[in-house]
Amino acid sequence: MAAATGAERRWVRGRGSPEAPQHPAPAYGRHGVGRPGGIWRTFQRDPEFGPDGCRRDAFPKLLLSQPAVLTISGSSAHWTPAHPQRLLHHQRPRQKRYYEEFPINLRTGEANLTQVYLQEALDFMKRQQVAQRPFFLYWAIDATHAPVYASRPFLGTSRRGRYGDAVREIDDSVGKILSLLRDLRITENTFVFFTSDNGAALISAPKQGGSNGPFLCGKQTTFEGGMREPAIAWWPGRIPAGQVSHQLGSIMDLFTTSLALAGLAPPSDRVIDGLDLLPAMLRGQLTDRPIFYYRGNTLMAVTLGQYKAHFWTWTNSWEEYRQGIDFCPGQNVSGVTTHTQEEHTKLPLIFHLGRDPGERYPLSFASTEYLDALRGVTLVVQQHQKTLVPGQPQLNVCNQAVMNWAPPGCEKLGKCLTPPESIPEKCSWPH
Amino acid sequence: MAAATGAERRWVRGRGSPEAPQHPAPAYGRHGVGRPGGIWRTFQRDPEFGPDGCRRDAFPKLLLSQPAVLTISGSSAHWTPAHPQRLLHHQRPRQKRYYEEFPINLRTGEANLTQVYLQEALDFMKRQQVAQRPFFLYWAIDATHAPVYASRPFLGTSRRGRYGDAVREIDDSVGKILSLLRDLRITENTFVFFTSDNGAALISAPKQGGSNGPFLCGKQTTFEGGMREPAIAWWPGRIPAGQVSHQLGSIMDLFTTSLALAGLAPPSDRVIDGLDLLPAMLRGQLTDRPIFYYRGNTLMAVTLGQYKAHFWTWTNSWEEYRQGIDFCPGQNVSGVTTHTQEEHTKLPLIFHLGRDPGERYPLSFASTEYLDALRGVTLVVQQHQKTLVPGQPQLNVCNQAVMNWAPPGCEKLGKCLTPPESIPEKCSWPH
Repeated sequence: MAAATGAERRWVRGRGSPEAPQHPAPAYGRHGVGRPGGIWRTFQRDPEFGPDGCRRDAFPKLLLSQPAVLTISGSSAHWTPAHPQRLLHHQRPRQKRYYEEFPINLRTGEANLTQVYLQEALDFMKRQQVAQRPFFLYWAIDATHAPVYASRPFLGTSRRGRYGDAVREIDDSVGKILSLLRDLRITENTFVFFTSDNGAALISAPKQGGSNGPFLCGKQTTFEGGMREPAIAWWPGRIPAGQVSHQLGSIMDLFTTSLALAGLAPPSDRVIDGLDLLPAMLRGQLTDRPIFYYRGNTLMAVTLGQYKAHFWTWTNSWEEYRQGIDFCPGQNVSGVTTHTQEEHTKLPLIFHLGRDPGERYPLSFASTEYLDALRGVTLVVQQHQKTLVPGQPQLNVCNQAVMNWAPPGCEKLGKCLTPPESIPEKCSWPH
Repeated sequence: MAAATGAERRWVRGRGSPEAPQHPAPAYGRHGVGRPGGIWRTFQRDPEFGPDGCRRDAFPKLLLSQPAVLTISGSSAHWTPAHPQRLLHHQRPRQKRYYEEFPINLRTGEANLTQVYLQEALDFMKRQQVAQRPFFLYWAIDATHAPVYASRPFLGTSRRGRYGDAVREIDDSVGKILSLLRDLRITENTFVFFTSDNGAALISAPKQGGSNGPFLCGKQTTFEGGMREPAIAWWPGRIPAGQVSHQLGSIMDLFTTSLALAGLAPPSDRVIDGLDLLPAMLRGQLTDRPIFYYRGNTLMAVTLGQYKAHFWTWTNSWEEYRQGIDFCPGQNVSGVTTHTQEEHTKLPLIFHLGRDPGERYPLSFASTEYLDALRGVTLVVQQHQKTLVPGQPQLNVCNQAVMNWAPPGCEKLGKCLTPPESIPEKCSWPH
């Protein structure tokens, strides 16, 4: 099935990157903002974005030259138009109805949205197979994002509450997608990658949040609970089954990896941070590389090998915290889970993530281990900062025009809207 | 291989019970007390206990009527003679040398003790197979108990530090035991149970402690981190592979289960709390039952179904805490992880362990869910207290005489000692 370019069929699920922790805007509500009794979500089926270049740039547009691309992505309960696949239409009435509306019953948690996403994905794959076209499917379900939902056959089936029901439905859906690949007999030239964009959003716990296991804090922080993700790569016949890789990766790597799979070179006019993960996945090769963690323009932390150095610590503000918003519920590591922005740039807090994955025991400043780790970390940070070319932020620019005002198909539904003038403006995050 | 009694070969690893959280005595040190540069441990190979009845009663003595029983148990760094398999000889010079001494290098963490335990187990099983005798093996390795150790081939092989090295060696050893069962062709009539006596001892973290994942606190507490254990039952051809059981169990159940496997009835002259787990393991049957959590004589908590009610909360005392002893490092749940003994008997804190396995969000006292759960919990506690017959404690009695002064084999080593007079006395725990 591979095209002349050497492109393989591939399916990539994943969004975000460690450099861009996602910040819900509590102003729009965390627990199912919307009309009483229900909330509506849209999903987007097409990468034809708005009239300005922002969103297209944020998406691996090189891939758009491939014959068939489908991105299915749930929108979430916060308004982040700069996130390409995240559209929420209900908060601003004038932005309603991009493709279709799907209700979520806030009281019962019932919604058939995952089934809609699933059906779209299956249909898309079948169509491409009939047309013998390689395809790229981005399947970003959002049932585990508050408001958490599941369809009726899954509601109440888990011992883990509604969140567990949602996970069960997602699990079942992933199984159906893999089954279809088997039925279509294209498993051996389909690359599947499963991951998430951030750790569990503990601000939504316990009823609508997951667990980050042993890791510290949750989504929105640069601690492991916010940043460390499960990742499963699947490619029968190419990726050995059951192997575990200790390669340090980030979602940004999926860009470079996807290009490599398609036989394309990454753009050479800029520094590309993403790493091609194929050597790790296909041959068990390990590449030593740092991962940098930003909040806004601030380099909060860096991981190098087993060590993670924090130059700044911060969970969320006292103001938020006093309102009951807590990114680290039940966790309190003195001097680490700070509610003020604490600077440690001169003497970073360094943790050994192997012995201490929960970031609870900073190495002693006086230890040889600390000094050795600091030396390594300092070098890679200097190198990073030397080669860093400040650019025009593409992921924290808001622009009404980039919403999907008139996606393909809208005319059939009579729901096409006229885009407003493109006015990019810097989004202000509450933290 | 089954004897006329219907006894199957069986291998049980496990110690302790939720009713008896184990309390190290910090007075004897937590981090490798002993001579400079090294610590010695003994291991015990035989259930021939001391001259008084205490220890024998604490052991399932009915099993002793079976032809072959081997208990191998590491001693630990605290002096708890009332724990049958826990002997530490080095703290009191006069108690030295029960069977043999095995050094642990405190600086490097090197010790070949797990290999010694392994070899003893393998030899024992081979001997029984030659003699065509059913056997009971209790194999309680202690490499993950501070001072944590591994033998040279495993030292430094893990990315998780010395603790990871120890786990790797234990994993390898369990593999070798299972392999021998396969080689001996007795897997189908050998019952294997793998579990632990308590959660990771977080007071030993990060260098010598494990992780309790999402669970609250660690060993010595009645929170999930202290009490919830992995458990794997293995019996090819009888226990379906890969199944997960939600049966709530306790290590006490292994007594009843072992008797059932041996075709023996539990004693009828007393209330037996242990449940026969065979229906759960063999037929996936679930039995609704409560689990009670004690510290000393205090009923701290009870689990019933998905709900856990805390009648008392306590981690460790302020005095200990101020000395740096912390049973819940990095965790702080207001009103739950208390350093004073807080009574909630009138209105227990209730958690839903499915949605909230980390015990971070007590149910609202005013909720219907709370009232329903409270009703169920109150009933089982009343029932429990009505049938409870206070007995002579067997697991918190200290008696110098019960140490293994002259175990079989000592004469060959010239290391037999004369037991002192039997003087049972109540042990005093620091908490």
